Amino acid sequence: LVALAATAALADPLPSWRDTDAKARLVGFVEAVTDPASGDYVTPAARIAVFDNDGTLWAEKPIYFQVLFAIDRLREMAGDDPSVLNSDALRAAAAGDMATVAASGAEGLLEIVAATHSGLSVEEFEAEVRAWLDVARHPQTGMTYAAMVYQPMLELLRYLRDEGFRTWIVSGGGLHFIRAFAEDVYNVPPEQVVGSTGEARYDAEGPAPRIAKDPGVAFVDDGAGKPLAIDARIGRRPIFAAGNSDGDFEMLEWTTAGDGPRFGMIVHHTDAAREFAYDREGHVGRLDRGLDEAEARGWLLVDMAEDWERVWPAGN
Amino acid sequence: LVALAATAALADPLPSWRDTDAKARLVGFVEAVTDPASGDYVTPAARIAVFDNDGTLWAEKPIYFQVLFAIDRLREMAGDDPSVLNSDALRAAAAGDMATVAASGAEGLLEIVAATHSGLSVEEFEAEVRAWLDVARHPQTGMTYAAMVYQPMLELLRYLRDEGFRTWIVSGGGLHFIRAFAEDVYNVPPEQVVGSTGEARYDAEGPAPRIAKDPGVAFVDDGAGKPLAIDARIGRRPIFAAGNSDGDFEMLEWTTAGDGPRFGMIVHHTDAAREFAYDREGHVGRLDRGLDEAEARGWLLVDMAEDWERVWPAGN
Ligand SMILES: [Ca+2]
Ligand SMILES: [Ca+2]
Repeated sequence: LVALAATAALADPLPSWRDTDAKARLVGFVEAVTDPASGDYVTPAARIAVFDNDGTLWAEKPIYFQVLFAIDRLREMAGDDPSVLNSDALRAAAAGDMATVAASGAEGLLEIVAATHSGLSVEEFEAEVRAWLDVARHPQTGMTYAAMVYQPMLELLRYLRDEGFRTWIVSGGGLHFIRAFAEDVYNVPPEQVVGSTGEARYDAEGPAPRIAKDPGVAFVDDGAGKPLAIDARIGRRPIFAAGNSDGDFEMLEWTTAGDGPRFGMIVHHTDAAREFAYDREGHVGRLDRGLDEAEARGWLLVDMAEDWERVWPAGN
Repeated sequence: LVALAATAALADPLPSWRDTDAKARLVGFVEAVTDPASGDYVTPAARIAVFDNDGTLWAEKPIYFQVLFAIDRLREMAGDDPSVLNSDALRAAAAGDMATVAASGAEGLLEIVAATHSGLSVEEFEAEVRAWLDVARHPQTGMTYAAMVYQPMLELLRYLRDEGFRTWIVSGGGLHFIRAFAEDVYNVPPEQVVGSTGEARYDAEGPAPRIAKDPGVAFVDDGAGKPLAIDARIGRRPIFAAGNSDGDFEMLEWTTAGDGPRFGMIVHHTDAAREFAYDREGHVGRLDRGLDEAEARGWLLVDMAEDWERVWPAGN
């Protein structure tokens, strides 16, 4: 029975994916690049796979979970000192007015992030994120945020790693925010997390040196920033890239423009019943150009409602 | 005989290190952190070792080899278009006036680098570096630059990797410059090279997208920049750090201030006969504060003349 179960597992590395074209294309790609007899064989060192995080590995509605963390932290800070709420975006955030927060765009979000992600060391900040993830609940589903990862994507990450890929996260979200849970939740170690970064400072004045997080944004890992960060951090062009919004367009373009076998995929949020349905409209996870160009560019458009047997991991 | 040779290799992972205190301390540290029965045991994932490059893994006199590359490239460019020589530092560089170049300090060096490291894609730039390394010769030794690596340090890199460490380069030199040879020469893959970076731009206008290198410095990976880059790139505090100048001070401080077993080492250039002798004076590889504080901080000061049986690899 154990042997049978093992065989079944080998036979289907992606059990939460339905037997649609999406799954066939994924498996076909992986089998081609890992078969030494294949003309598409790729050496393990070059098997680099990059994944966007928000909306690709976990959910992002009503707004990026990092913003929900920032809002909770902002309220806590404002409880101690109300003067921290010194802008419209900050006041809207503390009041829970998500529509105004979302409409404030990247600028408003960065303001909220700057106010709540500084004045701590990196270690202290990551501990805050982990403590929040332990207790916070999603306003609509009531689930913990770490439970709102996509089971089919967890299987894909694991399948790629089992086949000799290294899996990297390349996210518009904050580097230290994602590192706080990426190893536990995705099995992605800190050195394989690429994200947006704030200003930081080496501080050797106290009893022990620390990396201090300062206000101010140093690098936004979105759009054309993604291939730049991939070059700076990885130094090799990935052969596989997965995203869900136009912020991933250049990452997919860069990945799939390389020589040899390449795979680009976009998670298309089509499942209002089990998750959320959205694409061309809205401020969070907007997918417009990618939707228009995916087919012509040979990118797989994953239809969550059709291609996924389940969305969330069991046991939620 | 094969078995005997294998035993001998196991018995001495550092054959180019003499049997001095330096070697004993290195081996003692590695044995302690890799022995599961030891109170100092460190899991493989946390066995991060960081190495400065210039003056730590390869030589750096009369000036950083990257500057010698830049000067050769500048002359080639000036041959095509003399108007590129539009500053004192650039004119001194093209004239081979090393004293003036060295005295121009970081600013002059960065100017030379900016003029010669831009206008190319990353791939084109790395190909230029490799082509140069194939033919260029050191002005004093007549050796290729890749041959001017320190054999004892190659052994140390390999020894650490054999014992489950991941070895990273954390250099003030240019990221793409070092990546052009790090895998061949040090067995360090591109994702484990940290360095200074210039401005770059994602360019999707041409027939194929490219990462274009622009003039201008984005990040200087020296001094306090080193622990910041280690945080940004690795996301874990190393347990082993090796450097040779005060530009490595903060990297060693950050590394050795962590909990548990830690190792900091400084390569002290004491060997005028076989290499170069220098420390407190000069513009390149200045070691002053590190020399004063190494002992009190428990950092190993490697005496090249005393501790190394040989400097260069065989076959040069
Ligand atoms: Ca996304
Ligand atoms: Ca150095």
